[in-house]
Amino acid sequence: MFSLTVRDHIMIAHSLRGETFGPAQRLHGATYVVEATFRRTELDANGVVVDIGRAAEALRAVLAELDYRNLDDEPSLAGENSTTEALARVIANRLAERTQAGVLGDGARELRSLVVTLHESPVASASYERSL
Amino acid sequence: MFSLTVRDHIMIAHSLRGETFGPAQRLHGATYVVEATFRRTELDANGVVVDIGRAAEALRAVLAELDYRNLDDEPSLAGENSTTEALARVIANRLAERTQAGVLGDGARELRSLVVTLHESPVASASYERSL
Amino acid sequence: MFSLTVRDHIMIAHSLRGETFGPAQRLHGATYVVEATFRRTELDANGVVVDIGRAAEALRAVLAELDYRNLDDEPSLAGENSTTEALARVIANRLAERTQAGVLGDGARELRSLVVTLHESPVASASYERSL
Amino acid sequence: MFSLTVRDHIMIAHSLRGETFGPAQRLHGATYVVEATFRRTELDANGVVVDIGRAAEALRAVLAELDYRNLDDEPSLAGENSTTEALARVIANRLAERTQAGVLGDGARELRSLVVTLHESPVASASYERSL
Amino acid sequence: MFSLTVRDHIMIAHSLRGETFGPAQRLHGATYVVEATFRRTELDANGVVVDIGRAAEALRAVLAELDYRNLDDEPSLAGENSTTEALARVIANRLAERTQAGVLGDGARELRSLVVTLHESPVASASYERSL
Amino acid sequence: MFSLTVRDHIMIAHSLRGETFGPAQRLHGATYVVEATFRRTELDANGVVVDIGRAAEALRAVLAELDYRNLDDEPSLAGENSTTEALARVIANRLAERTQAGVLGDGARELRSLVVTLHESPVASASYERSL
Repeated sequence: MFSLTVRDHIMIAHSLRGETFGPAQRLHGATYVVEATFRRTELDANGVVVDIGRAAEALRAVLAELDYRNLDDEPSLAGENSTTEALARVIANRLAERTQAGVLGDGARELRSLVVTLHESPVASASYERSL
Repeated sequence: MFSLTVRDHIMIAHSLRGETFGPAQRLHGATYVVEATFRRTELDANGVVVDIGRAAEALRAVLAELDYRNLDDEPSLAGENSTTEALARVIANRLAERTQAGVLGDGARELRSLVVTLHESPVASASYERSL
Repeated sequence: MFSLTVRDHIMIAHSLRGETFGPAQRLHGATYVVEATFRRTELDANGVVVDIGRAAEALRAVLAELDYRNLDDEPSLAGENSTTEALARVIANRLAERTQAGVLGDGARELRSLVVTLHESPVASASYERSL
Repeated sequence: MFSLTVRDHIMIAHSLRGETFGPAQRLHGATYVVEATFRRTELDANGVVVDIGRAAEALRAVLAELDYRNLDDEPSLAGENSTTEALARVIANRLAERTQAGVLGDGARELRSLVVTLHESPVASASYERSL
Repeated sequence: MFSLTVRDHIMIAHSLRGETFGPAQRLHGATYVVEATFRRTELDANGVVVDIGRAAEALRAVLAELDYRNLDDEPSLAGENSTTEALARVIANRLAERTQAGVLGDGARELRSLVVTLHESPVASASYERSL
Repeated sequence: MFSLTVRDHIMIAHSLRGETFGPAQRLHGATYVVEATFRRTELDANGVVVDIGRAAEALRAVLAELDYRNLDDEPSLAGENSTTEALARVIANRLAERTQAGVLGDGARELRSLVVTLHESPVASASYERSL
C-alpha cells in the first residue's frame, strides 16, 4: 500500500457548545495544521499516488473555504460543533467530493482511502479516515 | 474511523538487561514524548472521540506513576526490560484500565482501540496498539 | 551567557485592523506556541538561570489571561492591533512585571533579559526582546 | 501490535519524467528524512520488536547506496521515475531483503510488516507498506 | 527589539568543490527549509515589523530563482561553492536588495537587520546575518 | 556574521540536589537534543564556517563521554548540579578545548563564538554561549 501526504494550515475562530468543553465554550481560535493522506495499492504510470501539485491545490481549495473565518458563522457548519474531529470529517468529505469530481485527474479513480489529520496544538490532534 | 491524540512527556532513568543493548545496559535515561491515540467509528453527541481534557488528565495520571523515576526500582515493572516497546504496552494497558473504570466518561464505552507511541529520541520511537 | 527557555501555548480569536492585513481583518484565530527565554551571565547557587518550574508557572499565569479568549474583547489590549509582534511584547512585559514582583524568586534579580517568541503557524513567528 | 521506528536521512539529486511534474522535471534535489517502521504481534525475549541498533544500521546501509548521489545515474533505479513514493518502495524492498538475509538477527523472523516513509519537505511525504 | 520570521523551502541539486566535502563533492541535492528574520526596534503604525504577506512573497520571489534547479549551472552562483552558509548569504543579500527596492513597503525603511537560516537536514543548518 | 549548527543527542540519568528541583531530586533521566552553533565573520576558502563533518565528529566525541551514563557517577561533573544549563556549559567548554586543540582544522582559528543548546523536553531548553 502506498500513501501520499500533503500539509497546509488554517487560522480560524470558533466556540464549542457543551459543558464538557470548559473554557473552549468561549469564542477562541486555532491554527490547524492539516494533513491529507491519499492511499492506493499501486502507483500510476508516472510512479505516483496522485499528482502532488493537484493534491496540494485541492487541499488549499477546501481549506480556503474555512481559512481566516469564524466557524460559528459558517452556514455549512451550522448545527454541529466544529470540534477538531468534526472538522477533520468536513475537510475529508469535501476533499473526497473534489476527488470524485476529477480535480485530481483520472488516475485518482484508483485511490482507496483518505485520512485527514488536524493538529490543533503541540499536544492535541484528531483525524478522520474514509474510503474513496 | 475517527481518532484523537493527546501528547505529554516523562523523564526517567533505567537500564536494559541483555548484551543486545550494548551501552544501554548501563544506567542511563530518556525523555519519552508519549502520544495516546483513541479511536472510534462515530463521534459522540458532543462531536468528539472522547473529552480531550479528560484524555489528557488520564494520560498524565498514568505517566505520573513513572515520571522522574528510576524504572529499575519500580516494583510494577520488575521482571521485564523497560524497553520503549514494553513501556508503550504498560502505558497503553494502564490507560485502558482507567478508560474501562470510567475516567473518560460514559461515551468512552464506544472507543474501539488505543495506540500509545513513545518517542525516545529524534531518531527512534516505538508503539503498542490494543483494542478497548 | 546562559539562557533558559520554557514553552507553552494559547488558543485565541482576534481580528486585525488595517487593509494591509487582507483576510486577517476578518475574525479568525490562532494557536500561538509561546516561548519565553530568560538570560543571565552567571548561574545561581543551584546551577540554574531560574527555577524552571516557577518560570513555567509564571508563563502559564500570563498566558491564562489570554487563553481561550477573543482578544478583540480584552480591555487590556484595547486600542492596539493584537498582531503576533504586539502580543509578544504584551506577554514579555507581563512576564517582566511578575519577575520584578518576585514570583521567580530572589535569584531572578540577576536576570539580564527576556525574549518572548510566538509561533503562529508552521511558516510564521515573531518575537520581542527586552532587558530585565 | 507493536512497532519500532528508526529515522535517518539522505541528500540526493534527481529529475522526474512527465509533464505532470512541472518544474520537478528539471534536475533538482531533496533531503529525504526516512522512517522505517517494523511491526510484530509479540515482543522477543529481550522485550523488543527488533534490535534498534541493528535496525538503524540496516537502514543506514540501504540509504548509503543512495546518499549523496544523482539518482538519474543509478543503474538500479533505471527505467522508473524516482518519485518519493517509488523511493519508499525501493528502500522498503531493500530493507526487507536484508531482514530476510538475517542482518536483523533471528528474532526478525517474527516481523510482520514494514512501512517506509519519506518526508521530502515540511509539506509533503510518501510511504510504502509491505509484509515481511 | 522586535523580529518577524517567515519560512519557506526549496529543493535543489548541487555539488561542492574541495576534498573537505567528501561525498558531497558528488552531484547530490537538498531540501532547504529557509527562514528569513527581519528585525527593528519599534513596530510600525499597524503594529508589525513588516507586512507578513509581503515578506513571504519577497522570500518566495528570491527562492523561486533557485528552486527546482541544479545550482552548479546557475550563472549567478558561478565561481563560489554553494555551501549552506554561502546560500544563506546569497538569499539574504537578494532579500535585502528587494527590501531596499521597496517591495516590503515604506515602513521597511526602519528595518535594522536580517537573518537568513537554511536547515539542510534534521542535524545541520547555517545562517547569515546582515544589517539593512 | 555566519553560523553553522550541528545537532546530536544523548540519553543520560541524573538527579539534582536542592529543594527547588522538586521531583527532579529523584534519580531520573533525559534525552538531550544538543545543538552546537559555531560563529565567524567571514567564510573560509571553501565557503564554510567550519568543516561540517569535523564539527559533527567533535560534538559526537564530546557527547560520547556523557552518553548512556548516570551523570551522578561522573567524576568530571562531581561537585556541581548537572542542570541543563550546567551541561550546556560543560559541553561548550569541552568543544572549545577540542577546537583550540585543532580538531576542526586550521580555519577554525577564525571562529568567534560557540553556543550550545540542550533541549530536555518539548517544553524546556537551555543554552550557554562563549567566545572562542
